[in-house]
Amino acid sequence: PPSRLPQVGTTIFTVMSALAQQVGAVNLGQGFPDFDPDPALAQAVGAAMAAGHHQYPPMAGVPALREAIARKVATLYGRAYDPINEITVTAGATQAILTALLALVQPGDEIIVLEPCYDSYVPGIELAGGTVVRVPLTDGSLRPDFDRLAAALTARTRAIIVNTPHNPSGTVWRADDLQRLWNVVADTDVLLIGDEVYEHMVYDGQPHASLATHPGLAARSLIVSSFGKTYHVTGWKVGYCLAPAPLMAEFRKVHQFNVFTVNTPMQHALAAYMADPAPYLGLAAFYQAKRDRFRAGLAGTRLRLLPCEGTYFQCVDYGALAVPERHLPVAEFCQWLTREVGVAAIPLSAFYGDGRNQQLVRLCFAKRDATLDEALQRLARL
Amino acid sequence: PPSRLPQVGTTIFTVMSALAQQVGAVNLGQGFPDFDPDPALAQAVGAAMAAGHHQYPPMAGVPALREAIARKVATLYGRAYDPINEITVTAGATQAILTALLALVQPGDEIIVLEPCYDSYVPGIELAGGTVVRVPLTDGSLRPDFDRLAAALTARTRAIIVNTPHNPSGTVWRADDLQRLWNVVADTDVLLIGDEVYEHMVYDGQPHASLATHPGLAARSLIVSSFGKTYHVTGWKVGYCLAPAPLMAEFRKVHQFNVFTVNTPMQHALAAYMADPAPYLGLAAFYQAKRDRFRAGLAGTRLRLLPCEGTYFQCVDYGALAVPERHLPVAEFCQWLTREVGVAAIPLSAFYGDGRNQQLVRLCFAKRDATLDEALQRLARL
Ligand SMILES: CSCCC(=O)C(=O)O
Ligand SMILES: CSCCC(=O)C(=O)O
Repeated sequence: PPSRLPQVGTTIFTVMSALAQQVGAVNLGQGFPDFDPDPALAQAVGAAMAAGHHQYPPMAGVPALREAIARKVATLYGRAYDPINEITVTAGATQAILTALLALVQPGDEIIVLEPCYDSYVPGIELAGGTVVRVPLTDGSLRPDFDRLAAALTARTRAIIVNTPHNPSGTVWRADDLQRLWNVVADTDVLLIGDEVYEHMVYDGQPHASLATHPGLAARSLIVSSFGKTYHVTGWKVGYCLAPAPLMAEFRKVHQFNVFTVNTPMQHALAAYMADPAPYLGLAAFYQAKRDRFRAGLAGTRLRLLPCEGTYFQCVDYGALAVPERHLPVAEFCQWLTREVGVAAIPLSAFYGDGRNQQLVRLCFAKRDATLDEALQRLARL
Repeated sequence: PPSRLPQVGTTIFTVMSALAQQVGAVNLGQGFPDFDPDPALAQAVGAAMAAGHHQYPPMAGVPALREAIARKVATLYGRAYDPINEITVTAGATQAILTALLALVQPGDEIIVLEPCYDSYVPGIELAGGTVVRVPLTDGSLRPDFDRLAAALTARTRAIIVNTPHNPSGTVWRADDLQRLWNVVADTDVLLIGDEVYEHMVYDGQPHASLATHPGLAARSLIVSSFGKTYHVTGWKVGYCLAPAPLMAEFRKVHQFNVFTVNTPMQHALAAYMADPAPYLGLAAFYQAKRDRFRAGLAGTRLRLLPCEGTYFQCVDYGALAVPERHLPVAEFCQWLTREVGVAAIPLSAFYGDGRNQQLVRLCFAKRDATLDEALQRLARL
């Protein structure tokens, strides 16, 4: 049959992880930790199974987990989401984003993405029958550009996908940015899909500017987060979505016919584990130390460092390297870096529709210090 | 915003489970066991976690699990699926079905469902932008009607959803039926989506007529199954999809942007547990004993039993009851049965677009014998 996604291949994350494994490279590509989660979390799964939690949970998620999420969000962002009608547990953040798109987008609606952006947004919009409108972030600094955003709005704009902390650039929105976004959308009925999976990884004492902190924006937002990122269990595939009840009602109509519900033992384990806020409150310090170690090491190479205010990604420009491969287009450069230098990275081009930003690659520092040091040693040879 | 699924509410399974819990009814509605899985399976999850399997597995699934699935399918159905290119692990069967629809359906394509049918098919087709074509099963016996099916085919028909063993009716296809289906589709390029989640629950020594057993059909089929149903872990939300490589390539394009991948510890546990075929080979005998016990008990009531050749569902006609509620439309009858008799059931009307079959309800017998006996005692009062 004709393809629904003719331009799509296998995600860059899968491709680079497979190549890294094949050639034995240090994998700083796909965003996942190479260390184990807190043993207490695995024990909580064992306890949930021992308690017989093996059958379908309620469609929207285990109540205790939804209540724990509501408490966290109220405490950190000052907005009360009703666990009954405004919170749904999802099979990861990617599933939540596609589900939101399928729920909101009518054929022909325009959905705005701020480029560069996570690679599931554009195919998700296409699967939902929407039209993708790409608004570039500011050149160089890769921050939201509200003039370009305002200019892109039309009567057909249904939603804007907002991602902060931002993958791949590592930039984070400020409270100011939320206010500027509000100025752009206040007089419209444009909705917002917030991808906030790195919410607990904002550095240097900055707060996370969640859409939930801005009452006007929150009232029209579906906000997505991820336990995989927060608790070092990317393979568990559990996340959640927050939204005001009328939007959540539409989200759940799709959710129940997509995954229906999410792994029961893991949900109970996460509910128990969330009772202690220390793990997520301490996450920024934990990753900031890794960021600082990694950046200090990179400073000794000819790779130029971009700022990293959040996420566990560090972007670098390789245009000043001494090797002739500095002239390679970025996708080939990443192949070469993986095969010949032994460090797998993600080309920034993968986050653009037209493959621009030919000299930037993304490195994941959610790794043991020994792994980061080994990668730094290999990169120092450049 | 306008709703993408304006006619959809909360699934009947969620509604009836919530009501059952609220009023303390024996829940024979939603299809899930009220007993625990084999402790060895939970132990295998513990072992997978102890081995550090917490991060993203490969997008298509843990290789050992895909290999175990391939071995099972080759042994039981005689078709070799390549674990690399033809098998994908999914977050349950419902996710697999929506993903298949999103991957295959172009806007305006017609998808045929055989009514009554599982309640996710129709909204899934609508989300994918397809047109639903409903072909009724035979009146009374609820078996596939190939004349009506042939008459429903048009140049726009993209696929037929085939479900055997059949939920809700408990009927199963025979090898003959596959041949008749082949006669209908052989000269077309119509695809098949096979929902075979009850594959290991076919009774009285009949084989399961998987689409995989018919080379012509298998070459154009995406076949979906469920570990939740087979291993008594409906809350784990792990299933799989089989398809020839070109169809699987399209399936995976969507899968990777929907859930991306599936719970790692559970996948490793299932891979280890599948090494022993005894649990799935023994499942038919296990549930046949429950079916026989349940039917024997029901024979002492005024409920009329429909045949049950497979699945863990028993349909009954309540038109001959002595109570005045026998005149209630089926949705209200099920409410009354849950509230007043203390047995939750699913109205067959929920499996139809137009709510027909006003006198039939579905009872799930995947329950401990004590639960079935308690339900029988309550039903005997009718
Ligand atoms: C779902 S695989 C990609 C993981 C990730 O979020 C990233 O590497 O950007
Ligand atoms: C996904 S909830 C419904 C479970 C089921 O398959 C059924 O009861 O028919």
